[in-house]
Formats: sequence, structure tokens, C-alpha cells
Amino acid sequence: MASPDSSNPLPTNDQPKEEEEGQESVGVKVSKKEANKLERQRRRQEAAAAAARLSAVSIDNAPDPLAANYGDIPMDERMSKSVTGRKWTYISDLTAELKDKEVLIRARVQAIREVGKKIAFIVLRKCGFTVQCVLTVAPDLVSPQMVKYATSLSKESIVDVLGVVSIPNVEIKGATQQVEVQIRKLHCLDRAAPTLPINIEDASRSEADIEKAAQEGKQLPRVNQDTRLNHRYIDTRTDANQGIFRVQSEVGNAFRDFLLTEGFCEIHTPKSIKGSSEGGAAVFRFLYKGQEACLAQSPQLHKQMAICGDFNRVFEIGPVYRAEDSFTHRHLCEFIGLDVEMEINEHYFEVMDIVDRLFVSLFDRLNKNCKKELDAIGRQYPFEPLKYSRKTLRLTFEEGVQMLKEAGVDIDPFGDLNTESERKLGQLVFEKYGTEFYILHRYPLAVRPFYTMPCYDNPAYSNSFDVFIRGEEIISGAQRIHMPEMLAKRAEECGIDVKTISTYIDSFRYGAPLHGGFGVGLERVVMLFCALNNIRKTSLFPRDPQRIAP
Amino acid sequence: MASPDSSNPLPTNDQPKEEEEGQESVGVKVSKKEANKLERQRRRQEAAAAAARLSAVSIDNAPDPLAANYGDIPMDERMSKSVTGRKWTYISDLTAELKDKEVLIRARVQAIREVGKKIAFIVLRKCGFTVQCVLTVAPDLVSPQMVKYATSLSKESIVDVLGVVSIPNVEIKGATQQVEVQIRKLHCLDRAAPTLPINIEDASRSEADIEKAAQEGKQLPRVNQDTRLNHRYIDTRTDANQGIFRVQSEVGNAFRDFLLTEGFCEIHTPKSIKGSSEGGAAVFRFLYKGQEACLAQSPQLHKQMAICGDFNRVFEIGPVYRAEDSFTHRHLCEFIGLDVEMEINEHYFEVMDIVDRLFVSLFDRLNKNCKKELDAIGRQYPFEPLKYSRKTLRLTFEEGVQMLKEAGVDIDPFGDLNTESERKLGQLVFEKYGTEFYILHRYPLAVRPFYTMPCYDNPAYSNSFDVFIRGEEIISGAQRIHMPEMLAKRAEECGIDVKTISTYIDSFRYGAPLHGGFGVGLERVVMLFCALNNIRKTSLFPRDPQRIAP
Repeated sequence: MASPDSSNPLPTNDQPKEEEEGQESVGVKVSKKEANKLERQRRRQEAAAAAARLSAVSIDNAPDPLAANYGDIPMDERMSKSVTGRKWTYISDLTAELKDKEVLIRARVQAIREVGKKIAFIVLRKCGFTVQCVLTVAPDLVSPQMVKYATSLSKESIVDVLGVVSIPNVEIKGATQQVEVQIRKLHCLDRAAPTLPINIEDASRSEADIEKAAQEGKQLPRVNQDTRLNHRYIDTRTDANQGIFRVQSEVGNAFRDFLLTEGFCEIHTPKSIKGSSEGGAAVFRFLYKGQEACLAQSPQLHKQMAICGDFNRVFEIGPVYRAEDSFTHRHLCEFIGLDVEMEINEHYFEVMDIVDRLFVSLFDRLNKNCKKELDAIGRQYPFEPLKYSRKTLRLTFEEGVQMLKEAGVDIDPFGDLNTESERKLGQLVFEKYGTEFYILHRYPLAVRPFYTMPCYDNPAYSNSFDVFIRGEEIISGAQRIHMPEMLAKRAEECGIDVKTISTYIDSFRYGAPLHGGFGVGLERVVMLFCALNNIRKTSLFPRDPQRIAP
Repeated sequence: MASPDSSNPLPTNDQPKEEEEGQESVGVKVSKKEANKLERQRRRQEAAAAAARLSAVSIDNAPDPLAANYGDIPMDERMSKSVTGRKWTYISDLTAELKDKEVLIRARVQAIREVGKKIAFIVLRKCGFTVQCVLTVAPDLVSPQMVKYATSLSKESIVDVLGVVSIPNVEIKGATQQVEVQIRKLHCLDRAAPTLPINIEDASRSEADIEKAAQEGKQLPRVNQDTRLNHRYIDTRTDANQGIFRVQSEVGNAFRDFLLTEGFCEIHTPKSIKGSSEGGAAVFRFLYKGQEACLAQSPQLHKQMAICGDFNRVFEIGPVYRAEDSFTHRHLCEFIGLDVEMEINEHYFEVMDIVDRLFVSLFDRLNKNCKKELDAIGRQYPFEPLKYSRKTLRLTFEEGVQMLKEAGVDIDPFGDLNTESERKLGQLVFEKYGTEFYILHRYPLAVRPFYTMPCYDNPAYSNSFDVFIRGEEIISGAQRIHMPEMLAKRAEECGIDVKTISTYIDSFRYGAPLHGGFGVGLERVVMLFCALNNIRKTSLFPRDPQRIAP
């Protein structure tokens, strides 16, 4: 039986409306007011939950001969009482092939709607898939009490539904699966508090839908970013967020798989570092058993030691810490670094070759393996698929500067590109070459770290590169200086006290291979591939200068 | 041409002998004396390196018509001057099939021996493979100056050898490859300082060889652990260490691959945590932008939030911090945690099923894919292959206690096992069941964290388990409490202030699935699989209460 209005999302009724906010507020501290509001909300929920439990109990006690077909699952069965051998079917597996078959489903209640006192529709959701279940009063099968029980369930509760698969004769627009389940048994495993801090429907709404409704004079709630991040364990239940973090998982795996087939060895280097890390930038300091320490800003020193230690080609996937006060859409204080270091035979182009093939294969794999996830992201946050070529475009920094100059941008030929020029250059490159992914190499030496190898023919430039997606820098890489004397000289020139980095320099004294590498931020790859507007969307529990919880 | 004494390791001559130490010293602070010694050593090395460069230059300047065939590679060619298209052959690929072929090899000089003034043998090493190269004075091919140049090279220097592959008529015992390379060109890419802090040959020696020599009245150097760890970029060049860290890489990949095929999603949770982490144990505290913070002792809270956030099954591979003053062979202050959390349908056995299949497949994969690496480890640190069964043995804690009691061990039936009883039980289990890998479950509730689900039939026990390899605990897991009321009650019973964990408890209020999980230490898996005696051997740059560098 198809719901009479199954083409529309089911109406919400028991959800508090979020205060509308014109703009997403980024990194705003949770205020005292907000905290009080949350506390009041929590108390209301507890009272409501208690009431719901009482109500459930009273139904359980009603003299219904079909009472065994519904009710809350007893406590001991939630505590590993027995292994029954029952099989649960995933919602994603509910297809027409199962017509007339009995299935057992465990999923969340996404929505419930009662029609009269005799019919209830329940939409169940699991891992981004939804199915419509129907409960119809029928002699010896479904009692009116059972329908009442069903409608007592709060949204987001977890239930077991035993039912029979049927094929409705109209399209179901309110669920992903084109079958219905006629409910025979309904048991609740865990009741959600009746009032949710985030309504999944609101959290799933696209900006376009909000604006469209506004034009029709309807004001739909918009869930702001802090509310989302404060209740991330609810926020991630939306289709878009499920997509984002499954794409993130795939990025890591594509990165790793490519490098493993190329003979790289995965390593793990420490994040607690003696002193104040290799660079001069802001670090998080702490006391390590009485010794001054800090959190690693990058695995640079250690991955280079691994190269000197004969690992030939290494990579690491691990956290990286930056204590900078960067309040931008693309900076985090803790993120996952994808770091690569490798011996090279003669040229830093060998490192760029790896970047080129690695990312083209990664993009291919995302487009192939994550179609469903990218669609889900795109439904809430519409984006154009990334345009990239089979062989990645390479431009020298000088060529880039020239393009910008020709476009009338005033730019220092030996300075770094600022965010604005990066974006402009991305636009120019796209217009000229049709790609949104390209490598800019041979950067001015002055804007790179001291350990960057200068160019053999012009010490004003260096054997280094940055890589851009959609006009934003995503990768930084270079050939490293492997000669201790040159390294010490460059450190001095950059104002670094050589004594403080003697361990680093010494590691190159006992036979050091030519080598180079690069680093990428995992969250940034996902953000830019999906053209999302904020890196907090691609970090499960983001850390920025003001947020360190939950 | 086979070396006249190729069955013996080439003699060392320019290496300082390490002070012999009867026992490996664990975690001893680098003393002022040691620091001074290192500084003197460094100065000597710099002087020697300068002399070597001068000597190389004087040879370059000698009127040798064959001078182009050898010498130090000019600086600009180490700075990405050109892409020549030359192909280098890996030593591992040097087999009889290449007989009479010309090959270009880049590798380290492992050993050099001059025979008269006309012949020199050079053993080259790359990624655990070695080959013997021969330089013989011959008209229009090899000059006496070239032999002199070759013998001027310090061990561990990196060279390019162009030569012709030949097949010697006797077995080569001093190298892994059974071919020789007749050198035509020899160029040095990077000279190692002539005096190494660690002699690779000494660092590669097994305890058995040292003892055997001692019985013959010969005292061979033993490199102590702190010297190794202070110069890890040299220490990891030994075959055993190359093996250990390639096995470590494979453990991570086997873990990940298994879980991905089982539908798990890889997640990354923050290591900087507000307040003082979820447990009461020692944490590393720091100031995060003015807020009190600490380093995560486990991803417990966040991986459970991910389950409440609908990820169904997740895993994480990332650093874990313990500030405990544990000076044992198996504790580190920073290690890589392999963490799993998953929805369960009805029983914590479902989590144990994953552990069972995951680890059996992991052990199988190591034995299959890492044969060469395990052999290399075993040559220096002999061990018996791990004995495990196709279906992992499961015993209840009560059964374990009973076995110990029958063996005369006095033990508290509701206390935890100490290291000694764990070992004893491991021995008893091995004798009775023939396996060194087993699961002990249904632990006393009192010895598990507050969030562990009690047993439905006896609240003195819990739905939890530990897993043991060779008598040492390696995995801890359990069903978690998913009901906020029960969780708060258990926290209180365990003396935890519920207010401090309200975020954690609140995350279960909005529909929480039944779930469980487990955690493993990566370094411990490698240590116990290979029966190594110290976890510092399986951490690339270990962190213990006294070591935070390099």
C-alpha cells in the first residue's frame, strides 16, 4: 500500500524548530545561553522519555491477545542474553526480488504517520537507505493497540520490524527502496528522547530548498554549524554526512592502495616531539614527563629519517597539529596528514609523477566507487564533478606569475601566492587548459621551508611544487636537501639556530639518498573534491582555535 | 670472480667498537658523557669527511685517461639538473637471467675490500638485498686510480655502479644475490662520514653468534638499545629491522583490508580532547588555546559516537597516549591503536567473531606475504612461528581461573589476571589445546571500565573479553552500555563524577544501537607475533617515560 501522499516528505510534528540564521556561523563559542537551553531541553526530554516508557508499559499490560507481536525489547535481551540465529536484512537489500518474503529489519524510525486509528506508516532508515513500512489493523494479525504502540515511538528510535515485502503500484518518493514492508511484528530496541536537538529532516535540507520555500513565503529551519558539531552523533545521520565520511574513508584507502602497489611502506612516527618541533610556527606545547615537548606539526623530520634508514619509499597517515589562529574555511588545528617521502634518482619530477598518477587514480576511484555517496552529498550541497585530465598539467611558478600578470594581477614574482591569486590563477588555468587540478612547480626559494633543495641553475628558485584543486592549494612538496653542510647553511640563512636542529642535520651524515616528498590534508581533499564550503564539514570532530569538543 | 673468502663476512676495519653491555639497557637517559662523546665523534667525522673530499678531488685531478669512469657525482646533478632517462636496476632483480647484461645500480656500500692494488670487492646493499661487485684493473677499462678511488669510499656511502653481470662458479655466501657485477663505472652520490655511530654488521649480529664467539674466546661488539634508538636512521638499515617495519606495515594493511571487506568505515577522531579524557588514568595535559586539554588515551568516546551517528561499523588506526610510568618491555607512552567499534544484533560474541576471523586472516597473510621479512627477523632474533587454530579457542574467565587453580595458582576469581598468571594460563592453554592465540571472555565486571555491559544473568561478570598471544594480553574488547541511565549508574558506582562525562552519556539519548568493539596495539601485535622481547623493537621512534627523541 502506497502512502496517499508518499511523494511528499512526511510532516514533522514533534521537533523543535532551530532558530534560523542567515549565515552559517563558523567556530562560534557555545554561549551560556545555549548551554542553559540545552540543559532545559535535556530535562524536558528525560521527562518525556519517562512518560513514553510508562505509556509503553500500559500498552504492554493491555489485554491484547496479539500483545506478543509488539512492545519494547526486554532489558536482558539487550545484554547478550542469547544467540538466536535470526538473520536481519539490510534495507539496501530490500528489492522486488523479495516480494512476499518475510524479512526482519533493524533500523531507525525516520518518520511515523498515523492515518485514522487503523493505519500507520513508518519510514525506516539504515546507512543512507530508507524503506516505507505499513501497519494495518487486521484480525489475528494487527491490533489497534499495536498501531497505538507504533505511533508512540519517537523518531530516531531503533526498532526490529518483522514483515512481508510487497510491491506498491505507485512510485514511492519518500524512501529509497521501491518496495514496502507489511508489518507483522514491531519491537523497540532503544527509544530516542522525544525531542531531538537536531531534526534529521532539517539537517538534510539544501540551501536551495530553503530559499525556494522562502520565495513561497514559507520559512524552513536551517541548522547552524555549531549545533551540528555539538551533536555530531545526530548530525552524521544525514545522507550527505554519511556520504562525506564514507568518501573520506575511500580517499584514505585509495591513497594507501596506490602507494602500496608502488612499493611504499606505511610507517608511523611519533606525534609527541621533544622541544618545539622543526618549524618556527605556533605549536601546542606540553610537559612530557618533565621534558619540554610539543605536538608534531608534520612528520617531516621522521619521514626523512626513515628514508635515511633505508625504507626507500614511505608514507604515513596520521594527525598533524597546527596551533595557528587561523579562522578560515580551510584551516583546522588538528587534521589528518597524508605524507609521502621517497628516494629519487635524479629529479624532483619523479615526486610529481607520483602525485600525478596517485591523484588521477584517486579521483577515478572516487567517481567509480562512491557514486551513491557523491550523489547524496550533491543533493544537499550541489557541486560540479571535478574536471581533471589524464596527465596532470604542470606549470612553472614563473609561467603562473606571467598568466596572472597578463590578466592584470599585480604580483611579486618572488613572493608567495595569496588565497586570492591562487583562486584567480585557478580560474585562468581552467579557462586556458580546461582542468581544475594542476601542479605549479619551481617556487621561489624564499617562500619555502629551509630544507627545500634550491634549483641547480638559479638559487632564487627551488625544486618544489604546490598542487591545486578548484583554485585552492592542496599539496605541498619538494626535493629535500640531503647534504648536511648545505642544510646547515640554509637553516642559518633562514634565521634558524642550527644547534636546535642538530639531530635532524646529523641524520644526513651517514649516507643520505636523494629524496623528496609531499604532504596533503585528508579533510581538504574531500572538501575540494566535493566543492564544499567549509573544512569543518569534512572533519568528523573538527578542532579549530575555539572548538575542542566533543 | 668470487672473492677468495666470500664465505666469510668481510672484515671491518674502520668502525669504533661499541662498549659491550651484558644486558640491553631499556630507557636509560642519554648522559652528558654520551652527549660529549657524540659531539667529539661528530667533529672527527667532519674532519675525516673533509679529508676524504680532498682526496677524491686529487684523484679526479690525476692525469687518468679513464677518469670519467669514476668520481663523485657533481653537486648540480644532485639538485635535479636533468632527466636522463637512465634506468636503475634494483639489487633484488639481479639474477642469472641478466648474465652479460650491463646494469646500473644505485645502492649503499656495505663493505669494501682491496686485494693487492689491482682488485677491489664492493658489497652493495639496497632494501635488504646485497650483491658483490668486482673492480679489476684492466687496460682501457679500469685504472689503478679507479681502484684507489673505490677503496677511498666509506661504508654506507651511496654509489652508482655501472657494470656487467657475471655468474661466479662458486657460491657467494657474503651476499644475497648469486651473481656478481663487474664494475665499469663507479660514481659516488653521497659519502657517509667515515666513522659510523653504529656498525651495521654489529647491529645485525644475533645474540647466539655473540655467545658462540665468546665461547671461542672472541669478544664481538653488541650494540645497546639506546645507541640504536639514538641513531635509528642507521639502526633500521639492518635486515631484521627492515623486516620488522615491513611486517608492521603489513599488519596495518591486513587489519584494514579485512575490515573494509566486512563493511567497516575508516574514521579519524581527534587526539586533542577537552578536559582530562574519559578515564582516570595518567594523561598528558596541555593548554589548547586557553582551554584545558589532554591527549586521547583511546578513541573510545568518539568511536562510540560514530556508532550512534549511524556509521554501523567503524575502525580507526591512530596514535594513543598513556602517561603512565610503566617501565616494562611492553608499554609505550605513545603507540598506534587499532580500534574497532560495531553495531551488534544480540550478543557480544559477534564482536569476538570479528576478532577471530580478523586475526586468523592477519596471521595467515603475514606468514604468506612476509616470508622474507620473517626470515630476516628470525636470523637475528630466532623465534618459533605462532601456533594458532583455524577457529580461535574461547574460554570463559571462570574456566581460566579453574585451570590456574588446578595448576596450583592462587588466584582471586573476581580480580584481574596479573602478568604472571597470564603467562601461566597461556602455557596451560598451549599444553591443553595446542594454540598460542585464544580469547578469554566474561571477565569480572569489577576489573573492566564503567562502560562495559554487565552480564544479563550475573552482574558480577561482564560481556567482555581479552585476547592473548603467547601468554600476553593483546586485545581488550566488550559490549558497551548503550542505555544512558545504566551508564550513569555504573559511572557513579565506579566513583566517576557523572557531570564530567555528560557529553558521553548524552550521546546515547537519541536512539543508540547495541554495540561493542575492541582495541589492539599495533606494536604489540608485531612484537608478539615475532616473539620479540621488547616493544621498543617494533616502534620506529619509541616514546617511553624517559624517551621523547629523536
